[in-house]
Amino acid sequence: MSNATLLVSCPDRRGIVAALAQLLYGHGANILDSDQHTDLDAGMFFQRIHFDQSDLRTDETTLRGAISEVADRFDMNWRLEDPNRKRRVALFVTKVEHCLYDLLLRERSGELNGQVAAIVSNHEKLRPVADQFDVPFHYLPIDRDNKAEQERRQLEILAENEIDLVVLARYMQILSEDFLAHYPSRILNIHHSFLPAFIGGRPYHQAYRRGVKLVGATAHYATTDLDEGPIVEQDVVRCSHRDSVRDLIRKGRDLERVVLGRAVRWHLEDRVLVYGNKTVVFD
Amino acid sequence: MSNATLLVSCPDRRGIVAALAQLLYGHGANILDSDQHTDLDAGMFFQRIHFDQSDLRTDETTLRGAISEVADRFDMNWRLEDPNRKRRVALFVTKVEHCLYDLLLRERSGELNGQVAAIVSNHEKLRPVADQFDVPFHYLPIDRDNKAEQERRQLEILAENEIDLVVLARYMQILSEDFLAHYPSRILNIHHSFLPAFIGGRPYHQAYRRGVKLVGATAHYATTDLDEGPIVEQDVVRCSHRDSVRDLIRKGRDLERVVLGRAVRWHLEDRVLVYGNKTVVFD
Amino acid sequence: MSNATLLVSCPDRRGIVAALAQLLYGHGANILDSDQHTDLDAGMFFQRIHFDQSDLRTDETTLRGAISEVADRFDMNWRLEDPNRKRRVALFVTKVEHCLYDLLLRERSGELNGQVAAIVSNHEKLRPVADQFDVPFHYLPIDRDNKAEQERRQLEILAENEIDLVVLARYMQILSEDFLAHYPSRILNIHHSFLPAFIGGRPYHQAYRRGVKLVGATAHYATTDLDEGPIVEQDVVRCSHRDSVRDLIRKGRDLERVVLGRAVRWHLEDRVLVYGNKTVVFD
Amino acid sequence: MSNATLLVSCPDRRGIVAALAQLLYGHGANILDSDQHTDLDAGMFFQRIHFDQSDLRTDETTLRGAISEVADRFDMNWRLEDPNRKRRVALFVTKVEHCLYDLLLRERSGELNGQVAAIVSNHEKLRPVADQFDVPFHYLPIDRDNKAEQERRQLEILAENEIDLVVLARYMQILSEDFLAHYPSRILNIHHSFLPAFIGGRPYHQAYRRGVKLVGATAHYATTDLDEGPIVEQDVVRCSHRDSVRDLIRKGRDLERVVLGRAVRWHLEDRVLVYGNKTVVFD
Repeated sequence: MSNATLLVSCPDRRGIVAALAQLLYGHGANILDSDQHTDLDAGMFFQRIHFDQSDLRTDETTLRGAISEVADRFDMNWRLEDPNRKRRVALFVTKVEHCLYDLLLRERSGELNGQVAAIVSNHEKLRPVADQFDVPFHYLPIDRDNKAEQERRQLEILAENEIDLVVLARYMQILSEDFLAHYPSRILNIHHSFLPAFIGGRPYHQAYRRGVKLVGATAHYATTDLDEGPIVEQDVVRCSHRDSVRDLIRKGRDLERVVLGRAVRWHLEDRVLVYGNKTVVFD
Repeated sequence: MSNATLLVSCPDRRGIVAALAQLLYGHGANILDSDQHTDLDAGMFFQRIHFDQSDLRTDETTLRGAISEVADRFDMNWRLEDPNRKRRVALFVTKVEHCLYDLLLRERSGELNGQVAAIVSNHEKLRPVADQFDVPFHYLPIDRDNKAEQERRQLEILAENEIDLVVLARYMQILSEDFLAHYPSRILNIHHSFLPAFIGGRPYHQAYRRGVKLVGATAHYATTDLDEGPIVEQDVVRCSHRDSVRDLIRKGRDLERVVLGRAVRWHLEDRVLVYGNKTVVFD
Repeated sequence: MSNATLLVSCPDRRGIVAALAQLLYGHGANILDSDQHTDLDAGMFFQRIHFDQSDLRTDETTLRGAISEVADRFDMNWRLEDPNRKRRVALFVTKVEHCLYDLLLRERSGELNGQVAAIVSNHEKLRPVADQFDVPFHYLPIDRDNKAEQERRQLEILAENEIDLVVLARYMQILSEDFLAHYPSRILNIHHSFLPAFIGGRPYHQAYRRGVKLVGATAHYATTDLDEGPIVEQDVVRCSHRDSVRDLIRKGRDLERVVLGRAVRWHLEDRVLVYGNKTVVFD
Repeated sequence: MSNATLLVSCPDRRGIVAALAQLLYGHGANILDSDQHTDLDAGMFFQRIHFDQSDLRTDETTLRGAISEVADRFDMNWRLEDPNRKRRVALFVTKVEHCLYDLLLRERSGELNGQVAAIVSNHEKLRPVADQFDVPFHYLPIDRDNKAEQERRQLEILAENEIDLVVLARYMQILSEDFLAHYPSRILNIHHSFLPAFIGGRPYHQAYRRGVKLVGATAHYATTDLDEGPIVEQDVVRCSHRDSVRDLIRKGRDLERVVLGRAVRWHLEDRVLVYGNKTVVFD
């Protein structure tokens, strides 16, 4: 079956839904699934249409042309994606292995519409994991002086590997504004707290000191404002006075895996739309 | 603003989405929100379309006629509902007050697209609550011999009050097949377990004996198969060896209120579609 | 049965558990339940012992004397409480009714080891609720100029009614340092966010703007640092891009009730110990 | 530090707590942590005492003798365990890898007080995982005729490896009564439903057909009554009409890992006591 996913966002106006439905129907496409959202405050409309194009009466170029015309009329941003194309993912890691293993296992189990094409690390420690899963491992140690250069090398690796999504799977380095600008809304980070609580370093220690009764994890797109990017997914787990920082870290590991796993899956299925500092997640 | 909600279900076919979108657009309706679902196993299509009809070029009769034609073509079941019409709700209770208070308070806070028009009970105990909220209280005691007669009286009350939805808010009587047939998919019950676990009487006692680590509650449509009707909503809360049956009952009270509250709200907003023994909930 | 609850906290040392167990056994008390915690970082020990004193060989004065001696040896803070004494609770409210109703219903269902002895409000709106539950309602309107005087009047009401616990059940006034000092660790507040996220006013609006995927509620002891007091209980509920501020407020109502209800119940059963800015909750 | 854990269960009587506290104190042991539970219905008392024995005035033999005397007086079952002894764990698997990887990674991260000493499987498929983690892999294929013989071989492997705990990590074979009798309350199984709902095969398919709104997982001790053994831990995750069986299986994988991981950790820390068909979990 030959499917496609159309994602649109535009100022909210009348007739958008009908215009797109008509357009697709007119070209022989069959809508399988459609989800939409209107943010009344922002005056914005969002839609994700999943359709079967096996009986398309025209070719993709013609279809794109027709969408483009409608898009002009409604001032739309749009993308037409092929859901059967496995996206190429790069994982950035440091020394902590649980998120790395988790994503590699999710890929292998067929959960993710993507393939881990590169693992980048500033430490050697996780190379054996990369080897076990037959993924190229790129060791780029970072010190006070070489950061800009190593980022340039990282960007080369991403380009060479035609990477669609970068996942910071507990990567303990801050990326530069320039680096981030190369992959807008395409770099997912996992922060080990329920943002906006406990921004910054050592959030489990912060949580312990504050005496909270739940600890959380947040998957968000990386932006230049650290830990302030658009949130894709969050979850929490209960804790108590009995939990030491070590216990919070342990509980958090399970949480981080699940939260990051969901965010990566949704991103790779084109379910996430970013606007302002927020996300629409069509799950 | 003059809105309407169109609910359809039919065998899955091509062109349904486009046909409906075109139809509505053609009559001057503006789709505000649309949600759909295809059950591939059952080969069934479901859609809920919420639209603004303030600029309708025709009248409602014409619109209904046009929908009817499309419906014939696609073998659709459909309903066109007015979301601004407050539905009329009857609450059936026995002696337990928490679900009764909860629904009355939800109504008062404006959460529910409905109005509690009658409270029916086989005991006098909760009459003062009805009085506080200015809702007519119908006392219909039930014994071995008068059940059929009292059900007839109940049906009269429901008819007189033009009731749209009956909520069994911890009503401790089994309704007859005949009674249920008058309100198919319009009688919501709350069962105090995570169905299908612990069907039947005293589910918290059953849960205690089995030594489970979570207790649940389930809101479902009442059918002739007791506790087997289509599930609308479920939730659970953690328990442990420390919890006595009394503790489970206490924890369950919070759960029952929330689960029943959600199910009633969704039903009153025309978000629930029943098919086979399952529900589609467009929340 | 004549039970008692002993609560102790002290610097962690050897032999505390044995000393208390021996002491109670020696006086004929039978330990029914005991829970303890050592905070290794703070070097502090906490214990809650629930015991049966129906076969006490001495009287309570002698027992207290003996505890006092052990307490001196270990530098203990301690309280001996009668769990059968219904604590006297004052509820402070403004205009929002859900937490008020909820606590009154919990009391009536027998969940709380306490009795609501006074409702204090700066508005008249909720007087009918107080009347329905036969609780004296004290109307103390607050304006720019009379705050100190009204607080004095509030303290008189609390004293006259021998109040053990003050619950700020969505009370929209900040209490003065002086007022708080009269009831240290005995004023519970419900904040409608997952603290420390969204401190201050309109937390649901803040949450909406940040685009979080969960909203929370926090019950904590009121201190002079607003929203910074020791946390007793927290919980969250899932939300999405579909939720308006109004939806978050609705979801939050269910959460606030449950979170505040738990905190009040635990406090009234002497299950909460405060140290530093944290709590030990022996649930 | 030289610690020990004492676990006792006995008919509920006066003076148990004091007798044990006195005994330990008298021998120079320092109680670090103690948790107890009385099941009033069953008339049973349970306690877990964690103590420091680095200043023991006697030797362990003398201490055990003294405990034995107290135990006789109170008709106690008791065990004295060394928490520093890494327990030896055998994992039984078939073809599904997520629980296997999960437990191996938990071990490596230091979460578990144990070491995976053997992996037993009726298929070759997961041998590479065993190799990656340097754990001996025992391939014992099972067909219609050789089951008894292969179980005998399995028991030899367990004996040779001095296995303390067997974990059925999605092992798709039923164990015989004889096999189970060798490891009472020491064989943990993960069932992929919220027991007692959906006992037996293909629980996700059963859940899908019933149209539940949550799916669960249950870790329990294996007994001769399939899926009826004492429950150690359970959890659930939300699902909806949108989830196919395949989606439920995916969601379930995350759940199974977390639920089984907790149960294994608690067991290895001597936190689980079994009585009747229930568990006390001192977490």
